[in-house]
Amino acid sequence: MVKINENFLSMKKNYLFIEIAKRVKAFSQAHPDADIIRMGIGDVTLPIAPAAVEAMKKAADEMGVKETFRGYEDSGAGYDFLKEAVAKYYKSFGANVKADEIRINDGAKADCGNIVDIFGDDNVVMITDPAYPVYVDTNLMNGRKVIYADSTEGNGFAAMPDDSVHADIIYLCSPNNPTGSVYTKEQLKKWVDYANKNGSVIIFDAAYEAFISEPDLPRSIFQIDGARTCAIEMCSLSKTAGFTGMRCGYTVIPEELKVTASDGSEVYLAQLWGRRQGSKFNGVSYPVQRAAEAIFTDEGQKQIKVNIDYYRENARIIASTLDEMGIYYTGGKNSPYIWLKCPGGLGSWEFFDKLLAEANVVGTPGEGFGKNGEGYFRLTAFGDRERTKQAMERFKALKF
Amino acid sequence: MVKINENFLSMKKNYLFIEIAKRVKAFSQAHPDADIIRMGIGDVTLPIAPAAVEAMKKAADEMGVKETFRGYEDSGAGYDFLKEAVAKYYKSFGANVKADEIRINDGAKADCGNIVDIFGDDNVVMITDPAYPVYVDTNLMNGRKVIYADSTEGNGFAAMPDDSVHADIIYLCSPNNPTGSVYTKEQLKKWVDYANKNGSVIIFDAAYEAFISEPDLPRSIFQIDGARTCAIEMCSLSKTAGFTGMRCGYTVIPEELKVTASDGSEVYLAQLWGRRQGSKFNGVSYPVQRAAEAIFTDEGQKQIKVNIDYYRENARIIASTLDEMGIYYTGGKNSPYIWLKCPGGLGSWEFFDKLLAEANVVGTPGEGFGKNGEGYFRLTAFGDRERTKQAMERFKALKF
Repeated sequence: MVKINENFLSMKKNYLFIEIAKRVKAFSQAHPDADIIRMGIGDVTLPIAPAAVEAMKKAADEMGVKETFRGYEDSGAGYDFLKEAVAKYYKSFGANVKADEIRINDGAKADCGNIVDIFGDDNVVMITDPAYPVYVDTNLMNGRKVIYADSTEGNGFAAMPDDSVHADIIYLCSPNNPTGSVYTKEQLKKWVDYANKNGSVIIFDAAYEAFISEPDLPRSIFQIDGARTCAIEMCSLSKTAGFTGMRCGYTVIPEELKVTASDGSEVYLAQLWGRRQGSKFNGVSYPVQRAAEAIFTDEGQKQIKVNIDYYRENARIIASTLDEMGIYYTGGKNSPYIWLKCPGGLGSWEFFDKLLAEANVVGTPGEGFGKNGEGYFRLTAFGDRERTKQAMERFKALKF
Repeated sequence: MVKINENFLSMKKNYLFIEIAKRVKAFSQAHPDADIIRMGIGDVTLPIAPAAVEAMKKAADEMGVKETFRGYEDSGAGYDFLKEAVAKYYKSFGANVKADEIRINDGAKADCGNIVDIFGDDNVVMITDPAYPVYVDTNLMNGRKVIYADSTEGNGFAAMPDDSVHADIIYLCSPNNPTGSVYTKEQLKKWVDYANKNGSVIIFDAAYEAFISEPDLPRSIFQIDGARTCAIEMCSLSKTAGFTGMRCGYTVIPEELKVTASDGSEVYLAQLWGRRQGSKFNGVSYPVQRAAEAIFTDEGQKQIKVNIDYYRENARIIASTLDEMGIYYTGGKNSPYIWLKCPGGLGSWEFFDKLLAEANVVGTPGEGFGKNGEGYFRLTAFGDRERTKQAMERFKALKF
């Protein structure tokens, strides 16, 4: 009789977005004329850059002609043209990453979830709380022990390492989802030092790096000395270039990153991950890779900057509303997320209900991202400008 | 200190295609004027259908306009337009599969490798030998016990169940890679009955179903009574429509397929897989899904049939050469693969070397697919017509 992976049974069902959808639906049905503004989703709304559209169409044409048709990609790790473009991009902000250390994927989520396959089930995993639920769930699926590093008002919702606590695998996300906090180089250096001292590996999620506008803030963990011996970085074009529906990202594993196995042999993680991917992945669609390549051209970079600036201005509008109202928040700068303390001492879901009922605005209750999220709330800057302004006007009119 | 997944250390490195590349390179360097014909790879060579190219270009344009832009797909399981097209396709050859039982993926390899995540590590896995190496490797990665069902000349290289052997998870591939054998409905029914009796799950790889031309042969395991309570099917557009570089496939899990967990609860595998994919996958690129949809239109089906017929004729040319030479083989009909017994009593690699040296033709030694492959050899029909003919002329001229 076949046995299921029973770790699934002990996983909490992720009710967050289901529960939000349920409450919004109930409210809409009771108030069919309500003009609801959605600021809860993490999806983008602006179209992809013309350079990427043209590149994809050109590649589609190539696929239709025998002489230029491309079948399986030899390595499945991405075409050199794209890996080299990504390496050049890293160099532009001072991170030294070689093209051969990059593997192209169909979005950060898959690699972020699958990377744990190369690690034993007996590792202790540390995740900052609140966090993107994928980090927790993908480790619980393998029955790994998960501990939490607290992100709180006390540390500006940017958890720092505690030398008295041991972790083998550490997930960091900066700019953070959901809190919008960004580690400084000094803060990130502390994590890197902790990892090197403890023989831990940091899984660094850089999905929102393109939103960093202050030049002193690190956009990659590989801008930090010592990261090459302890870190794996994942990034994506989803938020950088609106690729949520196009599906393209990349994972960087430095060539010197290695672990000593129980038989004393040294195992390079890039090789291990290559072996895993070689059996379970066949590369990213060629036309998608060409579209991604176009994002890294001068023209593509100019085009995506217009969109990122649009979202940044939305974030600024939200943040300045909160400033005006005297509400505590993190993010809003260098990040598309604004993480605010629920006004009037309300709980996450209480505030959700009030905002929905009285302002017809939908956001995300912080409690859905972990225990430290209780009493906090996430708004996103990925919406329409006018709707964002309207939502903030309605927010200001609320009475607590 | 972080621990790796040590199951990787006990996996045999897959040297097959590396070793082939090495020997071909050495031969080319020693004989720079040799005109080498490659019949070893499983990749297609004809371009994708015009209908798919146009659909992808149209979708790329949609992605560049705010009103028609698409971000994250809600479910990550595929757009309804494509799931419905696949369900209709199934219906066209008599398999009753509902659109909601289908999940669209980026190719069969990923799902075929990842599906094991929903099963416990203590299952006994049965794999036919010879087989596509992914089945074995992805189970060894989790430390599962793998046993083999022998495909031999005695059963026409189509292994059958043995009631005295117990297996929890069974991998079947028909038309088979590498042997080209195709199960009849009666044969497949025996496997389905075995699985239902033993509480096993069959992972059915239907990647080559489009090559079946005889109407009585099953193209899907869901044409067999009883399969809905024991089978998961994976298929792909890679070979059907030349999508090896486009990346799109689908997995079918019937809604009634369930397993009893250790606490006595009934767990539906489709839900478990949905939970896994929900944390580790974000759906297939929208323009790729539109290209795939176009394959299932009347126009698309006509266009891909021209390509499949081209490959079928290549297969026929190879098979008739072997008939002429009196060499035993399986496949060649209803399959793009031809699996032949090495002439002159040669071993797989001996024959590889002889064919390369004396005919300048590259194929794949059967031994690379499992122990029962020793003494056999795989040729593929995915090449150019004239080159296939040339290769066969050279083959006929060989002396043993």
